[in-house]
Amino acid sequence: MILKFACPDQRGLVARVTSFLAEHGANILDMAQFTDQLAGWFFLRIHFDASRLDLAPEDLHDRFAGLARGLAAEWRLRPAARLMPTVILVTRERHCLQDLLARCASGELPISIRAVVSNHEQLQPVVERAGCPFVFLPVDPAARPASFEPYRTVFEECAAELVVLARFMQILPPALCRDYAGRIINIHHSFLPAFAGANPYRQAFRRGVKIIGATSHYVTEDLDAGPIIEQEVLRVEHYHTPEDLVRLGRDCERIALSRAVRYHSAGRVLIHGNKTVVFRD
Amino acid sequence: MILKFACPDQRGLVARVTSFLAEHGANILDMAQFTDQLAGWFFLRIHFDASRLDLAPEDLHDRFAGLARGLAAEWRLRPAARLMPTVILVTRERHCLQDLLARCASGELPISIRAVVSNHEQLQPVVERAGCPFVFLPVDPAARPASFEPYRTVFEECAAELVVLARFMQILPPALCRDYAGRIINIHHSFLPAFAGANPYRQAFRRGVKIIGATSHYVTEDLDAGPIIEQEVLRVEHYHTPEDLVRLGRDCERIALSRAVRYHSAGRVLIHGNKTVVFRD
Amino acid sequence: MILKFACPDQRGLVARVTSFLAEHGANILDMAQFTDQLAGWFFLRIHFDASRLDLAPEDLHDRFAGLARGLAAEWRLRPAARLMPTVILVTRERHCLQDLLARCASGELPISIRAVVSNHEQLQPVVERAGCPFVFLPVDPAARPASFEPYRTVFEECAAELVVLARFMQILPPALCRDYAGRIINIHHSFLPAFAGANPYRQAFRRGVKIIGATSHYVTEDLDAGPIIEQEVLRVEHYHTPEDLVRLGRDCERIALSRAVRYHSAGRVLIHGNKTVVFRD
Amino acid sequence: MILKFACPDQRGLVARVTSFLAEHGANILDMAQFTDQLAGWFFLRIHFDASRLDLAPEDLHDRFAGLARGLAAEWRLRPAARLMPTVILVTRERHCLQDLLARCASGELPISIRAVVSNHEQLQPVVERAGCPFVFLPVDPAARPASFEPYRTVFEECAAELVVLARFMQILPPALCRDYAGRIINIHHSFLPAFAGANPYRQAFRRGVKIIGATSHYVTEDLDAGPIIEQEVLRVEHYHTPEDLVRLGRDCERIALSRAVRYHSAGRVLIHGNKTVVFRD
Repeated sequence: MILKFACPDQRGLVARVTSFLAEHGANILDMAQFTDQLAGWFFLRIHFDASRLDLAPEDLHDRFAGLARGLAAEWRLRPAARLMPTVILVTRERHCLQDLLARCASGELPISIRAVVSNHEQLQPVVERAGCPFVFLPVDPAARPASFEPYRTVFEECAAELVVLARFMQILPPALCRDYAGRIINIHHSFLPAFAGANPYRQAFRRGVKIIGATSHYVTEDLDAGPIIEQEVLRVEHYHTPEDLVRLGRDCERIALSRAVRYHSAGRVLIHGNKTVVFRD
Repeated sequence: MILKFACPDQRGLVARVTSFLAEHGANILDMAQFTDQLAGWFFLRIHFDASRLDLAPEDLHDRFAGLARGLAAEWRLRPAARLMPTVILVTRERHCLQDLLARCASGELPISIRAVVSNHEQLQPVVERAGCPFVFLPVDPAARPASFEPYRTVFEECAAELVVLARFMQILPPALCRDYAGRIINIHHSFLPAFAGANPYRQAFRRGVKIIGATSHYVTEDLDAGPIIEQEVLRVEHYHTPEDLVRLGRDCERIALSRAVRYHSAGRVLIHGNKTVVFRD
Repeated sequence: MILKFACPDQRGLVARVTSFLAEHGANILDMAQFTDQLAGWFFLRIHFDASRLDLAPEDLHDRFAGLARGLAAEWRLRPAARLMPTVILVTRERHCLQDLLARCASGELPISIRAVVSNHEQLQPVVERAGCPFVFLPVDPAARPASFEPYRTVFEECAAELVVLARFMQILPPALCRDYAGRIINIHHSFLPAFAGANPYRQAFRRGVKIIGATSHYVTEDLDAGPIIEQEVLRVEHYHTPEDLVRLGRDCERIALSRAVRYHSAGRVLIHGNKTVVFRD
Repeated sequence: MILKFACPDQRGLVARVTSFLAEHGANILDMAQFTDQLAGWFFLRIHFDASRLDLAPEDLHDRFAGLARGLAAEWRLRPAARLMPTVILVTRERHCLQDLLARCASGELPISIRAVVSNHEQLQPVVERAGCPFVFLPVDPAARPASFEPYRTVFEECAAELVVLARFMQILPPALCRDYAGRIINIHHSFLPAFAGANPYRQAFRRGVKIIGATSHYVTEDLDAGPIIEQEVLRVEHYHTPEDLVRLGRDCERIALSRAVRYHSAGRVLIHGNKTVVFRD
């Protein structure tokens, strides 16, 4: 099982949690811990073998809840093997979508893609060839919040624990961002906070930067300002045109997004305020 | 059109070639030049606009042949827009194949995939869903050279100017390597010359390296020793298992191989001895 | 000798310049060329062997001036071996200064450090131990423009063709920026345009970025907005404190600054508008 | 204080060690843990605040020894603030030496350089200007083991816990390697295991690799084959000469070596067999 755990820091936290697990027969396979001294906050992820527990998983859960309550902790305990139900949103660009589909097929991502939703029909064949359900949900610019109600319905029907904006060129309504806080990942095609907003590659070209990048982050109401999960960069030269930057940047996007999806779905990301703790693997 | 040109170095070569092109109305769009002082060899790639030539392309070709002969040059002149006929060879692993198929679909690679050939049937659905012809050609370990005759036939029928070994786990017969010298690209899953041969990720794990990589190179009779086109690396940590290295290394493989295919098919690679000049874009 | 050359693009430019050089007995050792199709501008750097010219260098210069005038070119011709007279400005931080001094001693930088100027006395021993003249020129916050007149005097007395702000924590007066346009290089300790202004590492920490960087650029009146020469980045993790970022970032600063100094002093940077063409080596 | 700890893996190790520390009033500031599942080995580093211990540090040490004995652990407990006594060995090349001296002066390395020893006199002024003792100890090729006895004497007199070969172009005698196992760090100027032995940049040039590197590792009797601590790489192009590789590679050497020195002196490296666990910071 995987335990994600965060609480105000105090002495002896590692001892208390690991002793609890040891007492009940859990064998720690992988543990990562971080104390943010400045924020006074403690973060823990433990992957443990639950095959020789001395009690049922539900009972472990309940007893752990008692321990956690006393520590004012936010925590989550879930089976390591379960694939995370995921919905992907796309518009017209296919490279991030195809990359996620291929990595899923290769077993690199512990997710189950329940649906791919788009405001355009263009990528329907790509999605269906991969054996995934495709849902076409147009967005009416004159009635944006209403247009997104069907999106919410899909998320709910899929029991989505992760929504991936794989170059989805629409801004989600604030209410949806709030309700799915910490569960929607976007890929922005710049090295944030540089070049937030539209046309980042063109902005990068104009500024004459020597390195471009891409940023995967959780979506918040504040556009392009949510907690960053991963960034990837690439050296460019004076001879690269804006079109070259678009092409080259795709590799940054593919990598920054697929890593974020992997880290999130493997319970490796803990959010605190507007920052993330990422126990990379 | 794209001109690739290499010859023994002498004074005034750039002037002679560019003057020739200027005289005939060619407008240079992109030029890259390199003189290997140690080897005494000159390399040139010119992408020029041929829309206002004062003579037919065939005549330009003939006249240029006269110039080149006097310089003992190896050269090639071909239309910039033509997609290069390509055959891909695979075994069971799909990540490089899927990456090439997706990049083709995204327009990142100026190639036309005429066939995907495999010694296993496993990837047939992947290939056919992408709309490419799949050819199953088993390899008999007891009759290897004979087993590869049908491969050669496919290459010829496809008029292949590029053969890509996308994790093809078989060694090609020497005669085939020779006849297709400079036209077969392999991806080796290590940072060559480290860990040549089998199981490079396991070798890397045992040696405890802190960075792993992948290498794309032209295939020669000498296994894993042909001219290197591109390499890509990735930092790893002590906690990565051999299986992690396999997973992480795939990104190096995808990138090193797809770049090599792009450079080769765009006429950006010039081979000299056992090394390459790569005019990157 | 080294020729830097830039002009509006037209057909046959490479042919004209290289033919001119060939006619006079110059042997091209290294040539780099770039045509900015969008801006319609042509950039050229040629390093040639002038030992067998058929005329004196001054005469070559004069004749080339005639050719260049007809092309409305900006250009410069100078001996390849000459060390560029350089002044370094520092405040209290020593790592960039020490790095430049060490690289000079190792022969990595074709510059001659004529003076190190500072608004603090702290680094005087470091400079003098390295055998360089140290000049202490305090800056009066109440009379900033006047405070910088002695700086200008030092630049003039040193015949400085390059002024390096090696973590100089003062803003130069606009007039000085203008008069030394294209000759003053600054290192900014962020991946510009992200985190311009003060305390970039603290800004980076607050934003929770996963990659930090440093940027070397020409100084203009517009703070942190001049043409970028080089950028270098480094991956950071959630466990890095602001102090860690300062420490780790120093390697980015050392590398981005020393490369910029090398490229500038070797005639490898051509400025066009607010961007640079850098023929890297 | 800093605890380094390694032992055969068993259930509950983290709980036992952290409970012990918590019971005695230690507050964990930073903890890093790793279990090598394949080797069945457990590694731990804890940096804790010892200001409110309920017993003297010596007593903590003694009691911990009892705990460790029962676990068959190798361990070390030492004050976090103490600078590690270090001896640096050099020959003629200065860039790594100067880099280490400058980083020491900047406070980046928690070491105290007790002596710089060389088999040549060339770098004496560099060392003395930095205020370090320089010891000239020539090596007689005809009497190598005897020549190194005075080296050993210096190590002993300096109570060296770290010996750094900063481009020391001599092979240490086997006995010295054994006696200082895990305490001598070398920088090899290639991406090991590629290009072990002499002239690695020339080997790299001949092979036509597209990326070069440097490797810092513990010295063992087996040349260039000891446990790797850190590696750093850099992209190179076809136009780079062997001399360019030497120049560019210096940045890899500086970074790979200075990081290794930092990790070792901060108790961040645990050796197991021929591999290292490095808890990076």
